[in-house]
Amino acid sequence: MSHLYIWVMIKCIEAKKPEKEWSKYNTIMRMEVTQVLHMNGGVGEASYANNSLVQQKVISLTKPIREEAITSLYCTTFPRSLAIADMGCSSGPNTLFVVSEIIKVVEKLCRELNRKSPEYKVFLNDLPGNDFNNIFKSLDSFKEKLSDEMESDIMGPCYFYGVPGSFYGRVFPNQSLNFVHSSYSLQWLSKVPEGAENNKDNIYISRTSPSNVVKAYYEQFQRDFSVFLKCRAEELVEGGRMVLTFLGRKSDNPCSKECCYIWELMAKALNDMVMQGIIKEDQVTTFNIPQYTPSPLEVKWEVLKEGSFAINRLEVSEVNWNAMDECNVFEFESEMNESLSDSGYNVAQCMRAVAEPLLVNHFGEAIIEKVFSRYQEILADRMSKEKTKFVNVTILLTRKG
Amino acid sequence: MSHLYIWVMIKCIEAKKPEKEWSKYNTIMRMEVTQVLHMNGGVGEASYANNSLVQQKVISLTKPIREEAITSLYCTTFPRSLAIADMGCSSGPNTLFVVSEIIKVVEKLCRELNRKSPEYKVFLNDLPGNDFNNIFKSLDSFKEKLSDEMESDIMGPCYFYGVPGSFYGRVFPNQSLNFVHSSYSLQWLSKVPEGAENNKDNIYISRTSPSNVVKAYYEQFQRDFSVFLKCRAEELVEGGRMVLTFLGRKSDNPCSKECCYIWELMAKALNDMVMQGIIKEDQVTTFNIPQYTPSPLEVKWEVLKEGSFAINRLEVSEVNWNAMDECNVFEFESEMNESLSDSGYNVAQCMRAVAEPLLVNHFGEAIIEKVFSRYQEILADRMSKEKTKFVNVTILLTRKG
Repeated sequence: MSHLYIWVMIKCIEAKKPEKEWSKYNTIMRMEVTQVLHMNGGVGEASYANNSLVQQKVISLTKPIREEAITSLYCTTFPRSLAIADMGCSSGPNTLFVVSEIIKVVEKLCRELNRKSPEYKVFLNDLPGNDFNNIFKSLDSFKEKLSDEMESDIMGPCYFYGVPGSFYGRVFPNQSLNFVHSSYSLQWLSKVPEGAENNKDNIYISRTSPSNVVKAYYEQFQRDFSVFLKCRAEELVEGGRMVLTFLGRKSDNPCSKECCYIWELMAKALNDMVMQGIIKEDQVTTFNIPQYTPSPLEVKWEVLKEGSFAINRLEVSEVNWNAMDECNVFEFESEMNESLSDSGYNVAQCMRAVAEPLLVNHFGEAIIEKVFSRYQEILADRMSKEKTKFVNVTILLTRKG
Repeated sequence: MSHLYIWVMIKCIEAKKPEKEWSKYNTIMRMEVTQVLHMNGGVGEASYANNSLVQQKVISLTKPIREEAITSLYCTTFPRSLAIADMGCSSGPNTLFVVSEIIKVVEKLCRELNRKSPEYKVFLNDLPGNDFNNIFKSLDSFKEKLSDEMESDIMGPCYFYGVPGSFYGRVFPNQSLNFVHSSYSLQWLSKVPEGAENNKDNIYISRTSPSNVVKAYYEQFQRDFSVFLKCRAEELVEGGRMVLTFLGRKSDNPCSKECCYIWELMAKALNDMVMQGIIKEDQVTTFNIPQYTPSPLEVKWEVLKEGSFAINRLEVSEVNWNAMDECNVFEFESEMNESLSDSGYNVAQCMRAVAEPLLVNHFGEAIIEKVFSRYQEILADRMSKEKTKFVNVTILLTRKG
C-alpha cells in the first residue's frame, strides 16, 4: 500500500468519510496530494510541483477532447499498431499520465468491440535538455501500475521511446504516427522574435507595446506554428489525429490583459529594480520572453493556411493562476493552507520554474532572488483584488487524405 | 580547430613528422588522445575513460565484421528505411561511434551504386539506469559532425531514439529492426545464477569452483542468451543482420585462466581482507559476479538450438587488459608514461567502473577503497610477470526466412 493511499485514508478517517468512499477520495485526491507532498520537499521541488499542477489541471480539463479523438481514431482505422507521440512531454508526474489515459480508452474500446488490442508505440519528445533519465527510471513501475489497473489481462504490448529534438523541425519518419498530443508547449516560440528590441518597459507584448513589437511576435508565432503543422503533417498517417493545447487567450487582441497580465507584473518587478538602480533600463527594453499566446482564431487560421488538417474541435478553457485554489476536496483546507495559502508565492514559483533560465541568461544570477521576491509581493497584491486565470486553447485535428 | 588537433600538431612537430602526415597522425592518435585528456580530468573520469578504452579497442577490432554485415544487408535488401539498434549502448565516447561508422558504410554504398540514401532510424538501448541525458545532449553536435564528414550532401535523414529496458526481454515491436549491434554487454547475465552459493573463496567461476557452480553459471548463460536470441528473432526482419561481441574465452573449459584470472585476482584482494578480519569469509562465499564469458562453441550452440539465425561468421580476438599498452603511436611514450605507466592502476580502475556497484551492494561502501587499492597491487604484480589479455568472441548472424 502506498504512502499516498495511507495519507488519504487518514484524511478520510479524520473527516469521518465512510470506508466505501475511501477509494473514490483516493482517486480524487491523488493528483493534488502528489503535488502537496512534493511541495513539502523544498523550494526547488515546490517550484516544479506547482508548475506541473497547472499543467495537470489543463490536462484534466482537456480529457474529453482526447477521448473523442482517440475513440474516433480507433473506430475508423482499427490500427494493429498505434504510434502515439507526446511532444513537449517534460519530466514529472504529468509525463506519462496522458499516455496511460489514451491506452485505457483504447483497451476499453477493444473489449467493447471484441477486438484484439493493438501494440502501442509511445514516443516521448522534448528538447535534448529535458530530464529523460527521470522518465526512463519510472517506466517499469508505470507499466506495472498500468497493467494492474487494466481490467483485462490481454493488454497490447507497449514500447516506449525517448525522442530528443525541437518540434519546430522533423522529429519522426514519414507517416509513422497515428496520434500526436501536445499540452502547454506550443506557446513557446523557437526564438525571441527579431524586430521587438524597442519593447520599452515590457518583457512580453503588452498594452503599451509598440505595434511593430506585436507584429514581430505574431509573425514569429505564424512561422513557428506553420512549421510545426507542416512537419507533423508529414509524420502523421492519413486519418491520424492531433490534440494541441496552447496557453492562449480568448480575445482577438494579442495585447489583451488575460494573456499579458502575468508578464506585465513580472515587468513591473523588473522596472522597480530599474528605479532602484539595480538593473539598467535598456536591459529591460531588450529582454523579451519567447512566447506567444494565440487566440482560437489565430490557431485556426494557421491550420487552414497550411491545409493538411481538418479541424474537428476548437475549444477554450480556463485555469486559475494558483491551481491550488481548486484543490480542496473537503474539510482540511486549514491544513493545506499552512503551506499553500500564499497564492503570490505559488504563482511566483510557478513562473520562476518557467522563466528563471531566460532571466538568468539576460540579467545574470545575482538579481534573481530579488526579482522573484518583488514579483511575489506584486502577485499577492493583485490576486487578492482580482480573479486571475490562464486561458487555454485546445484544437483537435485530423490529417486529411 | 580543436584542442585535440592542436595537441597532435605539437606532438608531430616535436617528433619532426612532415606536415603532410599530420592529418594521418591526427586520425591515428585521436582515439587515444581523447582518452588521455579524459584521464587527466580526475579519478572518476579516468575510470570511465579507461573502461571505455578497452571497449573502443574491441569496437575497432570488430569493424571488418560490421562492414561485411552492413554491406551484405544493404546490397541484398536495399531498404528504404534502415532501423539500427545498439543494445547495451552505454553513455560515452563509444556510444555513437558504431552508428556513425554504419551510416558511413551505407552512404558510400549508395554513392557507388548510384542509389538514393535510405532514412536511418537509430535505436539506442540500455538499462533504464543508463545516462541517456548525456547521449541526447551530444546528438546535435554528433549529427552536425556526421554530416560534415559525409562527402555527399544528400545523406538520408537520421532519427534517434533512446529505448530503455533489459535486452533479456522484448524491447522493440515485431519485425521492426534491420540491424542489431551489441558489444561487450552480452557477457552480463540477467542475474546472479541460483545454486552458486557454495563458490567458496571465489567471486566468479574459477579453477577451484565446485562443479555445481560452473553448471549454474553455464545454465544461466544458456537461459539468458537463448531469451535474447528469441526476442531479437521476433524483432528483426527476415534477412536482418546481428553482430554480437562477448567478453569471452577461447578454451572449451569455462574455468580457463584467460577468462577467470581477472576475477580470481579480485577474489584474492577480498580474501586478503578476510585474513585481516575486515570481511567475513562467508560474505565472499556468497558473493558472485553475474557474468559469463562464453566460448565460440557455446555461443554457436545456443544459436543453433534457437534456430532462427544463420551463422555467417564466428571470430575470436584479443585486447590487452591495459588497453593503453597499445596506444603509443610514436616517440612520446615517456610523456604518456607519466600518467599511464601504472598498468595496475588502469586495470583496477577499469574493473572498478564495472564492479563497484555490485561490490557496494554486497559488502557496503566502507571497504571499497581498500579492496581496489589491494587489487591494484595484485594486478600490477601479475601484469609485470605475465601477458594478460581479454578474449572477445564475435558472431555475425542473419535472420532466416
